[in-house]
Amino acid sequence: MKVAVVLSGCGVFDGAEIHESVLTLLALSRAGVEVQCMAPNVAQKQVINHLTGEEAKGEGRNVLVEAARIARGNIIDIAKANPKDYAAVFFPGGFGAAKNLCDFAFKGSDCTVQPDVLRFAQGMAELKKPACYICIAPAMIPRIYGKGAELTIGTDAGTADKIGAMGGQHRQCPVTEFVVDKARNIVSTPAYMLANNIGEAATGIEKAVKATLELVHA
Amino acid sequence: MKVAVVLSGCGVFDGAEIHESVLTLLALSRAGVEVQCMAPNVAQKQVINHLTGEEAKGEGRNVLVEAARIARGNIIDIAKANPKDYAAVFFPGGFGAAKNLCDFAFKGSDCTVQPDVLRFAQGMAELKKPACYICIAPAMIPRIYGKGAELTIGTDAGTADKIGAMGGQHRQCPVTEFVVDKARNIVSTPAYMLANNIGEAATGIEKAVKATLELVHA
Repeated sequence: MKVAVVLSGCGVFDGAEIHESVLTLLALSRAGVEVQCMAPNVAQKQVINHLTGEEAKGEGRNVLVEAARIARGNIIDIAKANPKDYAAVFFPGGFGAAKNLCDFAFKGSDCTVQPDVLRFAQGMAELKKPACYICIAPAMIPRIYGKGAELTIGTDAGTADKIGAMGGQHRQCPVTEFVVDKARNIVSTPAYMLANNIGEAATGIEKAVKATLELVHA
Repeated sequence: MKVAVVLSGCGVFDGAEIHESVLTLLALSRAGVEVQCMAPNVAQKQVINHLTGEEAKGEGRNVLVEAARIARGNIIDIAKANPKDYAAVFFPGGFGAAKNLCDFAFKGSDCTVQPDVLRFAQGMAELKKPACYICIAPAMIPRIYGKGAELTIGTDAGTADKIGAMGGQHRQCPVTEFVVDKARNIVSTPAYMLANNIGEAATGIEKAVKATLELVHA
């Protein structure tokens, strides 16, 4: 079985949340699953200095090139990925999911999903392949699946309201648990939307990955 | 109990190996240990495009600023760290350990350790505080502890010979195990010097972290 992990850069404030990405890869490796990392080959919307939290104005980085750091170089352009080749897809969070995979961080409920990401994610959805969205990544779900999909980003009311405005059905969920939309084969878990430490994030991600892989066999 | 994790950037080819760093943080979190990440506040020796493997000539990045990506912003300059404040220290690997923490990747057995890193690591050694060196990071051990220290970088004969030339006592070791220098309280494990996947790296790192924490209480 081969699955896709979609990364959005490398670093919580402008890319893929590194802990969530690695925890996802670890859970998949321990399940004996082959992984293909992928990312859109586009410029990052921002570069954030992670020491100061401030934007590094004038500095530019590429989402695919930076995501390759997490993937140890083993990564492909998502524009070249065929949904038929993958049994499931996993989207770790981080601001990159809300800045580079879509623009939810800037436009809220008016957001759109990056076209290559949208094509792949909707292709997986049309094939009823299980999908796991982590942290803030579930904000994309209404744009990919249309209205009515059940999901969680934890407990943040403001974010949940914006997702509701797009037609998503938000469910409150603790960090160590996950939400399943059984009709659409979607799993979501809050991770660092709520986690106080990496151990808490790991517990929820391990459960969500397991639940997603079970949907492959269901 | 608070421990130090010394990072060397963010990315296997020019900084800290991301999986090893996160696996170390995860094992420490699950052991209930408080962590302080730290890194030298110096320019990276190189920036490597992790998609192509080629050097990004003319591009510059700072080790502390990039390491902050792995630490989610919670990181300090190692020059400001006091060995008395930490019960143990952990050095994940990646080329950053051999390019930024020392220059073993460029100078082999003629290498020197970055001064701020050397001061902190030797301070920990003088206090007999346990230290855990992962992947290629053990190449620094002879420069920190002097001749005779036992360590492993796995099975690579060329690397082991260079460490031997510096006075280190290299021991062959499989990826899922670790080596302990009991006289000096040093633990080392091969991780991605040998690992074929993240699960293998995790098994060795989890054991090495546990063994290091047991030395704190020994």
